[in-house]
Amino acid sequence: MLKAGIIGGGGYTAGELIRVLLYHPEVEINFVLSQSQRGKLVSDVHDDLVGECYLHFTDEVSFDVDVLFLCMGHGRSRTFVESHAIPENVAIIDLSNDYRLDESFVYGLPELHKAAIKQSKRIANCGCFATAIQMALLPLASQHLLQDEVHVHAITGSTGAGQSPAPTTHFSWRNNNLSIYKAFNHQHLGEIKQSLRHLQPSFDKAINFLPVRGDFARGIYASAYIDCDLTEEEACQLYEDYYAEAPFTHLSRKNPNLKQVVNTNKCILHLEKHGNKLLIISIIDNLLKGASGQAVQNMNLVFGKAETMGLQLKSVVY
Amino acid sequence: MLKAGIIGGGGYTAGELIRVLLYHPEVEINFVLSQSQRGKLVSDVHDDLVGECYLHFTDEVSFDVDVLFLCMGHGRSRTFVESHAIPENVAIIDLSNDYRLDESFVYGLPELHKAAIKQSKRIANCGCFATAIQMALLPLASQHLLQDEVHVHAITGSTGAGQSPAPTTHFSWRNNNLSIYKAFNHQHLGEIKQSLRHLQPSFDKAINFLPVRGDFARGIYASAYIDCDLTEEEACQLYEDYYAEAPFTHLSRKNPNLKQVVNTNKCILHLEKHGNKLLIISIIDNLLKGASGQAVQNMNLVFGKAETMGLQLKSVVY
Amino acid sequence: MLKAGIIGGGGYTAGELIRVLLYHPEVEINFVLSQSQRGKLVSDVHDDLVGECYLHFTDEVSFDVDVLFLCMGHGRSRTFVESHAIPENVAIIDLSNDYRLDESFVYGLPELHKAAIKQSKRIANCGCFATAIQMALLPLASQHLLQDEVHVHAITGSTGAGQSPAPTTHFSWRNNNLSIYKAFNHQHLGEIKQSLRHLQPSFDKAINFLPVRGDFARGIYASAYIDCDLTEEEACQLYEDYYAEAPFTHLSRKNPNLKQVVNTNKCILHLEKHGNKLLIISIIDNLLKGASGQAVQNMNLVFGKAETMGLQLKSVVY
Amino acid sequence: MLKAGIIGGGGYTAGELIRVLLYHPEVEINFVLSQSQRGKLVSDVHDDLVGECYLHFTDEVSFDVDVLFLCMGHGRSRTFVESHAIPENVAIIDLSNDYRLDESFVYGLPELHKAAIKQSKRIANCGCFATAIQMALLPLASQHLLQDEVHVHAITGSTGAGQSPAPTTHFSWRNNNLSIYKAFNHQHLGEIKQSLRHLQPSFDKAINFLPVRGDFARGIYASAYIDCDLTEEEACQLYEDYYAEAPFTHLSRKNPNLKQVVNTNKCILHLEKHGNKLLIISIIDNLLKGASGQAVQNMNLVFGKAETMGLQLKSVVY
Repeated sequence: MLKAGIIGGGGYTAGELIRVLLYHPEVEINFVLSQSQRGKLVSDVHDDLVGECYLHFTDEVSFDVDVLFLCMGHGRSRTFVESHAIPENVAIIDLSNDYRLDESFVYGLPELHKAAIKQSKRIANCGCFATAIQMALLPLASQHLLQDEVHVHAITGSTGAGQSPAPTTHFSWRNNNLSIYKAFNHQHLGEIKQSLRHLQPSFDKAINFLPVRGDFARGIYASAYIDCDLTEEEACQLYEDYYAEAPFTHLSRKNPNLKQVVNTNKCILHLEKHGNKLLIISIIDNLLKGASGQAVQNMNLVFGKAETMGLQLKSVVY
Repeated sequence: MLKAGIIGGGGYTAGELIRVLLYHPEVEINFVLSQSQRGKLVSDVHDDLVGECYLHFTDEVSFDVDVLFLCMGHGRSRTFVESHAIPENVAIIDLSNDYRLDESFVYGLPELHKAAIKQSKRIANCGCFATAIQMALLPLASQHLLQDEVHVHAITGSTGAGQSPAPTTHFSWRNNNLSIYKAFNHQHLGEIKQSLRHLQPSFDKAINFLPVRGDFARGIYASAYIDCDLTEEEACQLYEDYYAEAPFTHLSRKNPNLKQVVNTNKCILHLEKHGNKLLIISIIDNLLKGASGQAVQNMNLVFGKAETMGLQLKSVVY
Repeated sequence: MLKAGIIGGGGYTAGELIRVLLYHPEVEINFVLSQSQRGKLVSDVHDDLVGECYLHFTDEVSFDVDVLFLCMGHGRSRTFVESHAIPENVAIIDLSNDYRLDESFVYGLPELHKAAIKQSKRIANCGCFATAIQMALLPLASQHLLQDEVHVHAITGSTGAGQSPAPTTHFSWRNNNLSIYKAFNHQHLGEIKQSLRHLQPSFDKAINFLPVRGDFARGIYASAYIDCDLTEEEACQLYEDYYAEAPFTHLSRKNPNLKQVVNTNKCILHLEKHGNKLLIISIIDNLLKGASGQAVQNMNLVFGKAETMGLQLKSVVY
Repeated sequence: MLKAGIIGGGGYTAGELIRVLLYHPEVEINFVLSQSQRGKLVSDVHDDLVGECYLHFTDEVSFDVDVLFLCMGHGRSRTFVESHAIPENVAIIDLSNDYRLDESFVYGLPELHKAAIKQSKRIANCGCFATAIQMALLPLASQHLLQDEVHVHAITGSTGAGQSPAPTTHFSWRNNNLSIYKAFNHQHLGEIKQSLRHLQPSFDKAINFLPVRGDFARGIYASAYIDCDLTEEEACQLYEDYYAEAPFTHLSRKNPNLKQVVNTNKCILHLEKHGNKLLIISIIDNLLKGASGQAVQNMNLVFGKAETMGLQLKSVVY
């Protein structure tokens, strides 16, 4: 059994990690650290765990674990890592954006860096939008087919904004509402471009990305299009080949809808060719494939477990 | 033209008041006071008013108006009234609960106290749950038919909780969710009982009231039942007679649904008899008939205007 | 008083028309025709009208009216017009797409053809997506600034799909869900291009349009971007000038959200410049500015009424 | 490995069964029968299963299985059973209401009849409302404490109405809406009373049950209250004792919310005493603990498996 510690245990991504690890057959949760919740039952904060989890939050960190998940939020992971002498043999999986552009960590996208992840104990888990968008574009980059501007539109659930209250996460505001934010400037563009250039070093075109706040809690629905000379069938073949070894990423020949992936670690892709435009639809659950599920997938790879272990999750579907 | 001033202009009920008064044919808004928003455009805070309203929030109160609407929240209205020398001829319509049990104000439910409202300049506007529930029970009380315990269940939209963020108004929590709060103890029971005893002084039975947080923004769906010897037809006749002069309160012979009243000042009632139980369904928009719409209805009565003036609002329906 | 007849009275757009016309100060509804609902009370079908409307559906058409609204659905308007001898002096406002590309009708977008509408009795009311997208692009076309491909993404509420049940309008499916449909091929592209070429005859670039089914009932949230050499301020000035005489179309300097326009006849626009890309956000209520509200706006123009008469509607906002 | 056949495979409960059985460690799905979908991929109909399930629907029944799940809808199970010679050793778990009041089947509520279920091969799986309400009342009945009328209110998700379209399952209608149906007369009252009398044969009081259509897809939020002389602590003790051996049914000392159980097989209960009223809140997922999850729980018991096998499901929580 792997022993896991979770730092920053009160937030959404930590909650999802706990839910997944609780039934992972080869992990036991050693501790869940939260300064603000210390002493409380984990199930008093993540209250769906009533009857399933009897852990209490602690405020004392321990490095007598196999893997540490850092769920503290952007900026605080680096501070934590730099201020503690974490043994090298303890795997660190960081869910913040602190190390995603940093060579001291492997960028934790199994569909791109599976071999490197297996060899590393320092993993920078990908951003949620970044995961959905990379899935849409990596196969093209692998063939150096990103030859023009890319047009990306992605709609995210409210959990992507975390649990701190904000005007745009107030139910009275967000219910039945939509709005664009950070148009063309979202912070995930950096990690997306890094990955695309890993495969297609010459890529220098714009990624025109409009992120949208959706009126649902979970999921990212991303669409991308680009001029492309492949036929629809050639493109489908390319994607199926590229993701042949990816157990969670599937090409759907039918036009998909977001709820096909909600509450799962899957990414479903769909391709359509219209004129010379190749449309790629990419859907994930932002908290699972876009955060905690992918973190466990990375953990499985780091420790040589089956990639899907503990991650065969029932979708909510309705 | 009546000149209106609004105190506490940044919240939900003030926003609704402004929306209604803006197109009221015999009112002009003299000022909207908000300490926290002073200097800002009203349409920067109530942003649906872009292009329709060019007022700025002020922080200076003026009593050179015909009517003052107090929208500051519970407890603060009394402080305001007691610390200012408001001229007697200025009508005060208080949307808080500060004066609802206080004889110095008329309880502002037109379906119960229309004559008194017309004679008064001090109106305590009713609570939202209180409005929906009284509508369901007043006709029975008027005939002294509340002879047993009353069982009431009412589900409210999130706007009933105001705009300050709370864990239970976070979108990620409330979307698709439900929860009961203040079971059997909601603060509106006091004003409800006061009204019922006004009509049926002997009423001394329990009102078993379960308030529920619903996963929608506007509206209250209330149901009540009680043992009753009237036939369904007799009960319908009683309700139609009682509300014959109420221009916003209607009996529906068909089973209603909440959205029939959302964004209107209407109350729709429906009766069914099952065995000896009389079921009454009562639906309102909590921000209009349950707050700002009723405030304008009261203002119309105080100033001898047509009761429906400015209040013939299009429902959102879908 | 204008006498109005409504043909095809059981659907969503007819319901909205009735709601608006009921309180229009210079219109009376002469009849509402529906074969399927004949004999029923209008308020039994459009049940939010309980207590407000005592009309019954008829199945007999009359041309003793000033204006006929055709709400029967696409394809059926032309059949109706061609099979009846409608007097020339009876204004026809057709809400289907049958005559939008037909020179015998004026295309009913007041922001483009106000003068022609005032002179005509045959109006082809615009499509909902078409309205939102044209509002975003007309000012640019007016200056011949559409010099490159346009990228458009628009998310619509479920009422856009009408009231006939479909798998994609089932609540269990659509709640919290998203999906793209008719990518690059939506039928409204024809009328959009016709209007753009009316202003900029040389326009021959692609409009890359992704329509999305949103998980809300009312509203369209459209975004468009294009390469543009104007500064943000120049662009704002252009839009304010273009819409100076448009009483429902407003430029917001703040980033808007969909609910600012829901249940109103307004269109709110917002501009941002990012690099050389001009982003335009355009939001409307699909049933009002995108259908029945615009139909009444057109009627007002045809009969020389104030353009906003009967259309100063309270937004639902929350 | 147990071999399972599913009859009536295209509906919601069959979909949920397939999702659960797919990762059940000791079951393999032998066939999924659907006349209407025959030949199609299961994942074309239950499209969240893309990449996970490669079965095709069949229209040929086989009895070479260990367990048959009947998911055909009410009335059709009895017809199927009576018209086929199903071997006695094949377990039948019927998800319709056909056999719930029939002594030839064991009523499949493990919290009431665990021993009998273990001895039987004919199981009538409980209704969804019936499950939630029985969970709230069984401990009281076990002590003969149902001495007065019971007041029950329960709000259900849209999946409870099945996938056939109906006016009340249209998204445009149901979104943000509420309505009561079958007040005091819901068909589940029969099975509820049968169970209560099994524990408290003298029970003859009314169960006043108001079912409500909620504006969410999954879950039932039920509340019940009754006059009761137990203290809150005594009542909690009674419930904890009664459910001591129930692995999915838990008493929460905190006031719960519906999403704590959505997408799980759990039932969470909560008790509050107000005056002499005992309030019981009971929440389940209608498709899992209220249908397919409970069916698998029953299957586990019939075949001597661990009761929770395959049912440790991650809640959707947000």
